[in-house]
Amino acid sequence: MNAIVLCSGGLDSTVLLHEVSRSHSVLAGLSFDYGSKHNARELPFAAAHCRALGIRHETVELGFMDRLFSSTLLRSGGAVPDGYYTEETMKATVVPFRNGILLSVAAGFAESVGAEAVMIGAHAGDHVIYPDCREPFMEAMAGALKLGTDAGVDLLRPFIAVDKSGIVQRGAEMGVDFSQTWSCYKGGERHCGACGTCVERREAFFLSGVDDPTEYESTGPLPGRPGA
Amino acid sequence: MNAIVLCSGGLDSTVLLHEVSRSHSVLAGLSFDYGSKHNARELPFAAAHCRALGIRHETVELGFMDRLFSSTLLRSGGAVPDGYYTEETMKATVVPFRNGILLSVAAGFAESVGAEAVMIGAHAGDHVIYPDCREPFMEAMAGALKLGTDAGVDLLRPFIAVDKSGIVQRGAEMGVDFSQTWSCYKGGERHCGACGTCVERREAFFLSGVDDPTEYESTGPLPGRPGA
Repeated sequence: MNAIVLCSGGLDSTVLLHEVSRSHSVLAGLSFDYGSKHNARELPFAAAHCRALGIRHETVELGFMDRLFSSTLLRSGGAVPDGYYTEETMKATVVPFRNGILLSVAAGFAESVGAEAVMIGAHAGDHVIYPDCREPFMEAMAGALKLGTDAGVDLLRPFIAVDKSGIVQRGAEMGVDFSQTWSCYKGGERHCGACGTCVERREAFFLSGVDDPTEYESTGPLPGRPGA
Repeated sequence: MNAIVLCSGGLDSTVLLHEVSRSHSVLAGLSFDYGSKHNARELPFAAAHCRALGIRHETVELGFMDRLFSSTLLRSGGAVPDGYYTEETMKATVVPFRNGILLSVAAGFAESVGAEAVMIGAHAGDHVIYPDCREPFMEAMAGALKLGTDAGVDLLRPFIAVDKSGIVQRGAEMGVDFSQTWSCYKGGERHCGACGTCVERREAFFLSGVDDPTEYESTGPLPGRPGA
């Protein structure tokens, strides 16, 4: 199958890129610069993995999101909160309809280059509080891609039944260099180790039993999950 | 209702902007510069109508479409064909999944500024050969917007049962200055009068009985419709 893989340079999509490239023809890895605080940290990793795999890499500029949208994830937004995600802190990091925008752009690009599918590293641990990560949204969006393209582009989510620690395990089995991936939303020199996405990254390595090569600013004990 | 109106500076969306602004609160008119040959001609009209109505106007830059997508509508594409749309000539002007991309961006912007609905000037004459103009796509996309936003943004198409000559009539009743709208895909100094969208514009004025103030390069007889 000819596919476009959305790759941010994060952990999930990097493992996806490696896995899909083994069994399918990846016509391109597609990244997005939408003005997040961590785009500058993660995108070079996306480019490097594509280069190493001999895959075309394209970065799409979506600078209008930083200018017009509201989110602490964006450079124009306030500080990214620390600790496990809670309803309140997560809402602050939502970039409205981001997945809808990224998948739409990917669908148009897929149709332009003759790809039959768009693949995204959505997984079982994705947060139901983000409306554009929920199953009903993904199903509606898959229908829109299929019906709105001449070729009937498919939206595929190979990791939808895998949690983040399972993704780490699969990556380790393929020899993915996790030090060449980026998660931290703060986008500093090193991973902060304390924001919601750093906490999940650290936990995924801990649960998978795979050595975590990441250099964190803070390696304090993982906080208890809310409500656990 | 608080709404975002997609306005290109074309005939349909300009009439929509005027009509919606009479009965709803239009938080912004949203235009897109995606590298089409006629963006430079139409977008100043979109801005001018918003300004005249006291409505915020934003132009979203989507330059990647011209760089990565294939279409004769784009500056990077070949010549725009003349005459009534046929299956073959229309396919050449398709910008893959364009409506999906524009509606997704509008949904994220609507959520960011507290708008409850995105309105688009889709109408009864829209071409079923464009996959992203067909009813099943629009319904799936409406579901994606509703489900993928926290506020449940609605996709509304007030002109979906109105044809283009009906839109001209409604605009004339509101006193819309049609000389301040742009249709021609070729994007020259004046409307060419011969490309598919010029032919439809001329026909809409003819059928509606409204004077056409447009200056065309060519005002030859309207060609017969294919199959008519």
